[in-house]
Amino acid sequence: MNTKKRIQALRERMENQEIEVSIVMNFENQYYFSGLKALTYSRPIVLVIDKQETALIVPSLEEEHSKEKANVDRLYVYHETKLRAEEGRSHLEHLAGIMRKYPAGTKVGIEFSSFPVKLERLLEEQGFQLVNLDQPIAEMRYIKDQEEIDLITESGRLVSLAVESSIGNVKAGMTEMEFDQFGTNALFTEVARKHPNATLDYFAMSPSGLARTNMPHVFSNTRKLEEQDILIHSRQVGLNGYRAECERTFFIGQPTERQKELFHLVLEAQLAALDFIKVGVTAKEVNEVARKIFEKGGVEEYMNHRTGHGIGIGLHEEPSLRYDNDLVLQEGMVFCVEPGLYIPDVGGFRHSDTVVLTKKGTNLITHYPNDLESLIIGDRVGKLSK
Amino acid sequence: MNTKKRIQALRERMENQEIEVSIVMNFENQYYFSGLKALTYSRPIVLVIDKQETALIVPSLEEEHSKEKANVDRLYVYHETKLRAEEGRSHLEHLAGIMRKYPAGTKVGIEFSSFPVKLERLLEEQGFQLVNLDQPIAEMRYIKDQEEIDLITESGRLVSLAVESSIGNVKAGMTEMEFDQFGTNALFTEVARKHPNATLDYFAMSPSGLARTNMPHVFSNTRKLEEQDILIHSRQVGLNGYRAECERTFFIGQPTERQKELFHLVLEAQLAALDFIKVGVTAKEVNEVARKIFEKGGVEEYMNHRTGHGIGIGLHEEPSLRYDNDLVLQEGMVFCVEPGLYIPDVGGFRHSDTVVLTKKGTNLITHYPNDLESLIIGDRVGKLSK
Repeated sequence: MNTKKRIQALRERMENQEIEVSIVMNFENQYYFSGLKALTYSRPIVLVIDKQETALIVPSLEEEHSKEKANVDRLYVYHETKLRAEEGRSHLEHLAGIMRKYPAGTKVGIEFSSFPVKLERLLEEQGFQLVNLDQPIAEMRYIKDQEEIDLITESGRLVSLAVESSIGNVKAGMTEMEFDQFGTNALFTEVARKHPNATLDYFAMSPSGLARTNMPHVFSNTRKLEEQDILIHSRQVGLNGYRAECERTFFIGQPTERQKELFHLVLEAQLAALDFIKVGVTAKEVNEVARKIFEKGGVEEYMNHRTGHGIGIGLHEEPSLRYDNDLVLQEGMVFCVEPGLYIPDVGGFRHSDTVVLTKKGTNLITHYPNDLESLIIGDRVGKLSK
Repeated sequence: MNTKKRIQALRERMENQEIEVSIVMNFENQYYFSGLKALTYSRPIVLVIDKQETALIVPSLEEEHSKEKANVDRLYVYHETKLRAEEGRSHLEHLAGIMRKYPAGTKVGIEFSSFPVKLERLLEEQGFQLVNLDQPIAEMRYIKDQEEIDLITESGRLVSLAVESSIGNVKAGMTEMEFDQFGTNALFTEVARKHPNATLDYFAMSPSGLARTNMPHVFSNTRKLEEQDILIHSRQVGLNGYRAECERTFFIGQPTERQKELFHLVLEAQLAALDFIKVGVTAKEVNEVARKIFEKGGVEEYMNHRTGHGIGIGLHEEPSLRYDNDLVLQEGMVFCVEPGLYIPDVGGFRHSDTVVLTKKGTNLITHYPNDLESLIIGDRVGKLSK
């Protein structure tokens, strides 16, 4: 990853706000600026960026991993063993050491939305002036460069393939988790073939039945799928940390007339939003296109989330396609477009597709059939065995 | 989950420190005190506990989920749709509303290690005195009650079964991720059979080969397993949020003489630590038992992490079995015991098992063979096909 360019862009923003040094604690931002993605952060990792140097503070467990993956000028390692304790016992010790060179009053950039109070207190004791980096970093991350778009586009292909495999293998009697595994296995096989030594984020959730599809965010569980079930199959895949999302609502057996109506309404809203979204419109206008269709259908009260969100390193990131977001959409932004409706005793309905905005047009990068006929599974495979 | 007892225990600790109200932001602590476990926290969730009431602030997406799962007195919902915006637009708005009833100077408990600066500033503006809850909550969580121990014990059985399935199916030529899937699939089948409607955390990582086993924490990737590979297969399973861990080092084909020596040394250290750990000894004494064996073997410099850690809702949690931890171990604590060695050009070596401390003795709750003969896979299944 070309983190140099990103560090350079951050330094320009720091310069504008007279920030001497930035301390990055958010995991996604650490990956964005250093290339290091850890498996767990239960031992803290700290990234420090000033005008001259980038420094990463890691636990000894991550020493070799960091040498291989992190694009930083200096590595500080802290230890939890007796033998090497004198080289540094904690991230706090190293951070205090690094910060000692800056005089009191120095402007220090931190992410207010994720920076922990414990570290903030340490900085305040040294008399630093703290400046919020949330917005500058979010703005950098929401415009993707070609390398990022290429990864997300390939993730779009991979997530579509996984959705196809899960929906293609569904049968009443299997659990939500077993249903997810078909796609996950297909994904692993494809990634091994095409991207040896890649890292992969993968995520699937498939609430089934009336009650569970009404909860937009629940882990797949061991509920067994039944005939006449409605399901929302939701997936994200991230190749080398860059994600795309694809989601489909489908039925095992024939939906009710009311379910058919709502399926068509949600699809209409999604297609309208996908048709409308482009460079130059605002985020809230995209949301409004979908909202109006729900209003017309008399179901606006059941729309309980925004029409979509940015995606990239984060599973949700800015910009938000929300009723109150005036931001003008720009080239290089990537969105999941996914208006949804959740209606007690009828079911939850949501399709999501991922699009990349370019000057020449909007590129859909996820592909799976979205018409009702393709998404009534009983009709396709005949009577299902229980 | 019996969250009432936990809330009561927290209130007693608050009373001791004259804390009027606590604001819990750490996800694990929110689950511990409310029973709500969200799939993502990209939309913030806030738990507020005072002497009379518990209140949870959630995004509209989690409204139904919270009604089903959260044991709280009041639910505050914030909205991202135009129609319901006037009921509350953000978690900050609701939190400010809740906190308005407390006068300036009120002592407010927050978790310094995870509480974000953004919320802290809001509290400071209102003149509250902030008190650190990190330690009191960690102390509550590290003594498990019977309900927690029962879940962890069953997770121990499940994780052992998954390890057995992955190692039992290993062949040169499959990728690390494909290797992991055998155990994950077996786990899903078993959980569907025994625990319908449970939620499940599952995690596997299986670095293979000399370079990758030297990185204790890396995601499984698409590297293909080769004959003569060394692997560390590491798994956690959490039934309804409560985790156990089992890890084994094994070989595809015959290890070298040096690898055999180190395998035996690490096993000796783990068995000695497992034999020693009990109610009444200190955390650092357990670490010392393993460290001494590495010192005797002349390889202490390659021990790059502590001998073990607590486990429960967290994949790592306190207490740490670390050289500088004087804590006396108590009944109800649960530990992963896992001394490890990481030696360039020889490989990484680590077994982990999970134990529950009781007055009557220490119960091992993970079970998989740990002897070298069982863990040389080529010998067991004959010549492997490539």
